[in-house]
Amino acid sequence: MIQKLIANIQKTHAPIVVGLDPMLNYIPEHITKKAFAEFGENLEGAGEAIWQYNKEIVDHTYDLIPAVKPQIAMYEQFGIPGLAAFKRTVDYCKEKGLVVIGDVKRGDIGSTSAAYATAHLGKVQIGSKAYAAFDEDFATVNPYLGSDGVKPFIEVCKQEKKGLFILVKTSNPSSGEFQDQLIDGRPLYELVGEKVAEWGVDCMGEDYSYIGAVVGATYPEMGKVLRKIMPKSFILVPGYGAQGGKGADLVHFFNEDGLGAIVNSSRGIIAAYKQEKYAKFGPEHFAEASRAAVEDMVEDIDSALRNR
Amino acid sequence: MIQKLIANIQKTHAPIVVGLDPMLNYIPEHITKKAFAEFGENLEGAGEAIWQYNKEIVDHTYDLIPAVKPQIAMYEQFGIPGLAAFKRTVDYCKEKGLVVIGDVKRGDIGSTSAAYATAHLGKVQIGSKAYAAFDEDFATVNPYLGSDGVKPFIEVCKQEKKGLFILVKTSNPSSGEFQDQLIDGRPLYELVGEKVAEWGVDCMGEDYSYIGAVVGATYPEMGKVLRKIMPKSFILVPGYGAQGGKGADLVHFFNEDGLGAIVNSSRGIIAAYKQEKYAKFGPEHFAEASRAAVEDMVEDIDSALRNR
Repeated sequence: MIQKLIANIQKTHAPIVVGLDPMLNYIPEHITKKAFAEFGENLEGAGEAIWQYNKEIVDHTYDLIPAVKPQIAMYEQFGIPGLAAFKRTVDYCKEKGLVVIGDVKRGDIGSTSAAYATAHLGKVQIGSKAYAAFDEDFATVNPYLGSDGVKPFIEVCKQEKKGLFILVKTSNPSSGEFQDQLIDGRPLYELVGEKVAEWGVDCMGEDYSYIGAVVGATYPEMGKVLRKIMPKSFILVPGYGAQGGKGADLVHFFNEDGLGAIVNSSRGIIAAYKQEKYAKFGPEHFAEASRAAVEDMVEDIDSALRNR
Repeated sequence: MIQKLIANIQKTHAPIVVGLDPMLNYIPEHITKKAFAEFGENLEGAGEAIWQYNKEIVDHTYDLIPAVKPQIAMYEQFGIPGLAAFKRTVDYCKEKGLVVIGDVKRGDIGSTSAAYATAHLGKVQIGSKAYAAFDEDFATVNPYLGSDGVKPFIEVCKQEKKGLFILVKTSNPSSGEFQDQLIDGRPLYELVGEKVAEWGVDCMGEDYSYIGAVVGATYPEMGKVLRKIMPKSFILVPGYGAQGGKGADLVHFFNEDGLGAIVNSSRGIIAAYKQEKYAKFGPEHFAEASRAAVEDMVEDIDSALRNR
């Protein structure tokens, strides 16, 4: 799957990922109104509205982008109908040729991590048949429990030719509280980064490992260091746009080959029509605003990479 | 909800929690056969089998125990039907008067943690109405992202009078890989423990905070230290039984008042009929075996506490 991700990036010339993290207040009224009329102003109606909103964004952007990253929390809050919308979104994006990164940040003790890995990347055996539950291409994983919490995910990735992005340095303001603590003079996130590099050795595609890392765009200096610690790992970079990261901050997350990183934007793309810059599209044409925002983001990152 | 947990512990004299972590190979054939005949040998059939299995265990143990802890990964691997079985289990246990600890180990950046908190402990606003998605009483939370990843959970707990157990020192063999790293001579888990105590100050029930911690039974010496660092926090203690923890290892997790800890056993209770000790019950009477295993566990812990 790492090879498909790289091929998609090379085809689109866009090392970006669109975060499909819908909030009800992002969704234009004409969509929610229709969904609520059909399914009720309830969890089912919300699930339908989210799905219709996502579908229109994907239809308007899929030819420009290599991958999407649905954040499962945004669906989980709408219960079973929300998770059904998540699954429908995953399936639809895969049909469109996109790589789907399930932003699930799971992680637990060994046997439980194995169940999560099965849920998101693998297949569960029921009698004589095997069924895929959510079936994303990549998943994000929390490393706090150590190797035996991560390895069951790696095992499933080997079997299914899928991949991981493991949290190393997250984009939020208080990520340093534990992640930056110094151990023998070096921050914890560097230790985690070394582990990611180590786990990735046996999991190589052609030039890159399918065991990647998450490093926030909001910490470009740390990104520079982590790039060197994990030369063969793809870095998923959240925090661009709404969280404050800019194209110029991102160059050091990439290798010389122009690969090795994929930058996520969520709100900045999916709710672009709410920004002054794209307001001319109006709520009726929200997905065209998303397309324009994707084009601008690709240009911003491309020009930063050209000028480094 | 911390007061209800304490009241339930005092009523049952059992500081224990039953981990409802069903695996298909734990479920007796008469249950899976019936479920598959009705719904098919597929995700729906598996979800039905899990639900029937859980229900029978709860029916045979609810009067002896204060709380249950369903591990959502075990349901998530069966996709939407699995999560529907999770929700049904949560609702049924609450009807039976049990406190439900959702073992979900979620945690993310602020806005995403807010969505997870809404999903598991709160209510989501849809138009003029608010709906609860999964509606557990407590949830487990991963602290790797720091305060701004935890605080949205605390906010929802304040509003809804619910509670958390935050991962401090987990029960698995490699938990030390990051959690035991020394920072100015002290392990990371102590720092996390201090934060849990600090977060808990504004979240007091009568004698205990509703912001608790997870500390594995497999690390009794660390439990002793963490008990002192977090005197007002309830400690959820996994790792008893199948993972190797014994009653005698657990005394230091408790305060002098006999409260402050709640010990989980999953496999050891729900699949008790597979152990030689309880084999006489046979698969047909698996839930009676679970009841006997609960009685033995309560006695083991009670005698350890009496003899300390």
